Amino acid sequence: MVVNVGVIGTGMIGTYHIERLSTQLAGARVAAVFDVAAERARQVADSVGATAHADAHDVINDDGVDAVVVASPGDTHAEYALACIKAGKPLLSEKPLATTVEDCLAVLEAEAGHGRRLVQVGFMRRYDAGYGRVKAAVDDGSIGEPLVVHCVHRNPVVPDHFTSDMLQTDSVIHEIDTTRWLLGDEIVAATVLTPRSTPLAAAHLRDPQLTVMETAAGAIVEVEMFVNAQYGYDVRCEIVGSEGTVELETPSAVSLTSGGRRSRSVPVDWKQRFGAAFHAEFEQWIAAAATGHVTGPSAWDGYAATAVAVACVDALESGRRVPVSLVDQPAMYA
Amino acid sequence: MVVNVGVIGTGMIGTYHIERLSTQLAGARVAAVFDVAAERARQVADSVGATAHADAHDVINDDGVDAVVVASPGDTHAEYALACIKAGKPLLSEKPLATTVEDCLAVLEAEAGHGRRLVQVGFMRRYDAGYGRVKAAVDDGSIGEPLVVHCVHRNPVVPDHFTSDMLQTDSVIHEIDTTRWLLGDEIVAATVLTPRSTPLAAAHLRDPQLTVMETAAGAIVEVEMFVNAQYGYDVRCEIVGSEGTVELETPSAVSLTSGGRRSRSVPVDWKQRFGAAFHAEFEQWIAAAATGHVTGPSAWDGYAATAVAVACVDALESGRRVPVSLVDQPAMYA
Amino acid sequence: MVVNVGVIGTGMIGTYHIERLSTQLAGARVAAVFDVAAERARQVADSVGATAHADAHDVINDDGVDAVVVASPGDTHAEYALACIKAGKPLLSEKPLATTVEDCLAVLEAEAGHGRRLVQVGFMRRYDAGYGRVKAAVDDGSIGEPLVVHCVHRNPVVPDHFTSDMLQTDSVIHEIDTTRWLLGDEIVAATVLTPRSTPLAAAHLRDPQLTVMETAAGAIVEVEMFVNAQYGYDVRCEIVGSEGTVELETPSAVSLTSGGRRSRSVPVDWKQRFGAAFHAEFEQWIAAAATGHVTGPSAWDGYAATAVAVACVDALESGRRVPVSLVDQPAMYA
Amino acid sequence: MVVNVGVIGTGMIGTYHIERLSTQLAGARVAAVFDVAAERARQVADSVGATAHADAHDVINDDGVDAVVVASPGDTHAEYALACIKAGKPLLSEKPLATTVEDCLAVLEAEAGHGRRLVQVGFMRRYDAGYGRVKAAVDDGSIGEPLVVHCVHRNPVVPDHFTSDMLQTDSVIHEIDTTRWLLGDEIVAATVLTPRSTPLAAAHLRDPQLTVMETAAGAIVEVEMFVNAQYGYDVRCEIVGSEGTVELETPSAVSLTSGGRRSRSVPVDWKQRFGAAFHAEFEQWIAAAATGHVTGPSAWDGYAATAVAVACVDALESGRRVPVSLVDQPAMYA
Repeated sequence: MVVNVGVIGTGMIGTYHIERLSTQLAGARVAAVFDVAAERARQVADSVGATAHADAHDVINDDGVDAVVVASPGDTHAEYALACIKAGKPLLSEKPLATTVEDCLAVLEAEAGHGRRLVQVGFMRRYDAGYGRVKAAVDDGSIGEPLVVHCVHRNPVVPDHFTSDMLQTDSVIHEIDTTRWLLGDEIVAATVLTPRSTPLAAAHLRDPQLTVMETAAGAIVEVEMFVNAQYGYDVRCEIVGSEGTVELETPSAVSLTSGGRRSRSVPVDWKQRFGAAFHAEFEQWIAAAATGHVTGPSAWDGYAATAVAVACVDALESGRRVPVSLVDQPAMYA
Repeated sequence: MVVNVGVIGTGMIGTYHIERLSTQLAGARVAAVFDVAAERARQVADSVGATAHADAHDVINDDGVDAVVVASPGDTHAEYALACIKAGKPLLSEKPLATTVEDCLAVLEAEAGHGRRLVQVGFMRRYDAGYGRVKAAVDDGSIGEPLVVHCVHRNPVVPDHFTSDMLQTDSVIHEIDTTRWLLGDEIVAATVLTPRSTPLAAAHLRDPQLTVMETAAGAIVEVEMFVNAQYGYDVRCEIVGSEGTVELETPSAVSLTSGGRRSRSVPVDWKQRFGAAFHAEFEQWIAAAATGHVTGPSAWDGYAATAVAVACVDALESGRRVPVSLVDQPAMYA
Repeated sequence: MVVNVGVIGTGMIGTYHIERLSTQLAGARVAAVFDVAAERARQVADSVGATAHADAHDVINDDGVDAVVVASPGDTHAEYALACIKAGKPLLSEKPLATTVEDCLAVLEAEAGHGRRLVQVGFMRRYDAGYGRVKAAVDDGSIGEPLVVHCVHRNPVVPDHFTSDMLQTDSVIHEIDTTRWLLGDEIVAATVLTPRSTPLAAAHLRDPQLTVMETAAGAIVEVEMFVNAQYGYDVRCEIVGSEGTVELETPSAVSLTSGGRRSRSVPVDWKQRFGAAFHAEFEQWIAAAATGHVTGPSAWDGYAATAVAVACVDALESGRRVPVSLVDQPAMYA
Repeated sequence: MVVNVGVIGTGMIGTYHIERLSTQLAGARVAAVFDVAAERARQVADSVGATAHADAHDVINDDGVDAVVVASPGDTHAEYALACIKAGKPLLSEKPLATTVEDCLAVLEAEAGHGRRLVQVGFMRRYDAGYGRVKAAVDDGSIGEPLVVHCVHRNPVVPDHFTSDMLQTDSVIHEIDTTRWLLGDEIVAATVLTPRSTPLAAAHLRDPQLTVMETAAGAIVEVEMFVNAQYGYDVRCEIVGSEGTVELETPSAVSLTSGGRRSRSVPVDWKQRFGAAFHAEFEQWIAAAATGHVTGPSAWDGYAATAVAVACVDALESGRRVPVSLVDQPAMYA
């Protein structure tokens, strides 16, 4: 069976997904698209034989659409997730699930009303081979009890419109999700420290930032978030346990030795680093969507991540330690 | 458009390809299969909605088949390649193209008669990201002129029926192809040295073997082939140039530190090491086959590899340096 | 010329230094020793042809002693430093210079009165080849402006008498010194976070601890201090700059591949990791002491390190961010 | 006790040893020196308070000399070794023991006549920490039975007077010795292959060369010797055993990440790579010489290494496989 996918948002990330769905993966086709940039949407639709709708809800409610990918701006995600749930269609929403805790809770409530999972949040790192091995090492007891987590998340540069809070809501949110998933634990408080900013960032930007989070079980997670690191795209993660540690490595395929140095390349961007993870994410989502439901990161995961990210922004702006408290987890997410 | 693929051979490797064509890649479906184990072929065919034919030539000549994958035993490859050329259908033949130089030449001649490339040989390493970067470093001048190539090719174990000559024809043949491709150079002579054999190999087996090859341009290539290395599947390659060297690295995604050691895992087998290369190989072959021709490793490459492998077997058995001479390269392969 | 060295303290570290001075380094001999364990001191003295004195001050004031090594318990260091200054003899004091800020200031004042440096504090990491290269990379601009420093300091185990504050005063004090030295910057505030403790530590111990320090120039330094890490002795340091990063590597001389893993050993203890640094430290101290003065880490460095370590203990116990303020730096240390 | 050392040869390597003996190591002093460049010898002697003799034999026979270091040109080594044996004085001879097999045998015979070891050959790699760990891994069974040895030995450049045979006699001789020592096995045949030479070498030079050696126990050793590798000084060694492999690593203390690459430095020359090995070699030689005999690489090792190196030169020049046969090993070397 072929899953007919509707895609909301035909910007950079939406187009990236459309190409994968259309030309690389078995079992799916793009049936309909929408973007506020209508001309752009039409061109993309034409290139893959899809229909361009004038309204995002028309994509969701299109009878020829079996499942939906939401790749529009973050503040529209909740509206579309609610509409997909109402239509009973599986969706893969790019992170965040929603930009406010309230909106996340509305999605949780709607999905609870539906009674079965339809929402998957696009935390693609869970599909990365390296993160998978880190999780395996935690789960199989190789490192004992997790006590401390060290994370590094560096981008070479960001566009000018990128603001200080976005380091937390757009970037650290990945570490929030991976930590929750790797440890099987919830984050209960956050503090954000800001060293002097790099002279290579926009004047308005606090960059880098050091986020320190505490988990319910008592682990401490520290994240260096640096979006103007210049040299490349570098994501690291070490889980320090009572009997050992496990560390994500920066993938590299060859080493070059010349001029007195032996060197390996660093990924240039997230597409290079996590392309295979996106591929696996969509492969599994299509297989699940073909059955009418989903299995990956849930609306609960999306809610928890947003709740923590919101606390991180508060911590950044206030300079204080900000506690996070979550509602009781609905049974369907246990 | 969907390419309807016929697959000859539903053993381990054939099934591996069928699964990829059926469930992982866009643009293809398995339409027909054949295997001398008819019941096995029927089961595989049923699982993917294909037809099981009673004769391999029926697969090739099936009107519903656009392109053919040959994954049967090596000594049948030439026959099926010739049949595919006669039928004007693109094929992807697992290595070797043929087990004898004569059979390879027959395929070359037939393809020349057709006037356009139809034959691709399954040297999947050319699609490996690491080998691709090695080639890029050679081609962009990063290491100067290539002078020496060091290769290591280790399997953890082999089945009992694996014989000493198969280290050359089944295993070193990969290094023969990668070397030719990486250097853009032909191999003109081979010598094979045999140290004492590992006590962990079958008594009849000379394992490991050290193959030393010379290229037309004067480079020397040495290959340690070891098929009972126990510890894992390990493929290494270093090109030593006049100004630097480039080395393939063993992929690893995490490191684990415990008990006094920091360690990374070694791939367990060729599927783990080269799974992504097979994926890319088929992705590109399908795209090319959809246009009625192919672009990857050619019949010429298959011929040259077999000619060198045959020389290596002679060198192994005679203990002498064995020259390799190739026929003139037809213009269509230049 | 041979420098006649008096050694106060013949415990583990004192004996370690005596062996180096007596049998490995040119230009020095051990002339006199003292330890509160008089019998132990006598045995050590006999083994190297030195005199065992009944009082530490007799070592310092022995006419046959040119320079002094202080390797007694930390709370005696200030007394002996003051006595050495009074006697006009160069000394190498194991860290800390003194256990209280007041005592450190007394030593600073005495040395100022002498008018020339006599005191060197045993921060041996400054003599480690790796740290030296980290400093070179900071100083030559390779990484741009330092913004964040990540440190890891792990011991396999500690004895039962090791207390929670000692993680700061005995262990993190090394990172305090290296950070000050690497950045050429002073630490102005400290916070200490404590995750749940490892189940493998003594019940009274908070272990690991995460120390976060701020520098005058605005860099942030975070140190994971973990004294029951089990797997080995592991010291790491990464300086993140505006244009790149430099990282200390764990020294390893070979890799072993077997059983599916490629592994390198981790140092077992500080002697293995920093033995060469101690060697270089003493080599340079002897050369300097032969001229009647010293050049390594100064009394000012010792004072600053103690002031920060004391703040860290306060931060650990109070759970608060604790500012550090130093007296004005005397000109002789500039 | 202080060992009074006489040094024959005050060129680059001799001066290097004199500095170590005079200023870095305990237990030795340089008492007398000789060099054919008399003025140079006098300056060096003055700088360390030694006597400059007009004849090398005067150094050996100087009553104030307890032990001798021979660092003169290779073709003088045998003469001085014989004189030292006659004088009953321990010596450390830079490699080779002698440049001809006949001269080596004369030294063996003379030492046998003396009845006790006096001769140590300067194969300093045996004192390198990495090689020590490689040997430990072979000896403790970690890799099973050694079957193949891969060696790489690269210098950045050589002076113009360096000739093709010197790649074997001056450079590969180190691999000859380390292999014999690591495997506890003798080399019984050698072949040398020559790829096209690097365009960056002198026109007369065959560089690189690939030496393939066979051992009595049946292992095969291949050595890439490349003396104009440009990028640095790089020595590698992997022992491939029936159950695993052990590999020497290139020492590096830090990694630098900038401009899209993570890199480590490669040693620039043999002093940087093997300085600590020379240090350990001399430390142990002094301790042994103080007792009147020596313990390191023996005259037998020197003889075997020269015998193999001579065969390698024959193999290089003839293009043939050249067998090596050794005399029976005198009991005192067993």
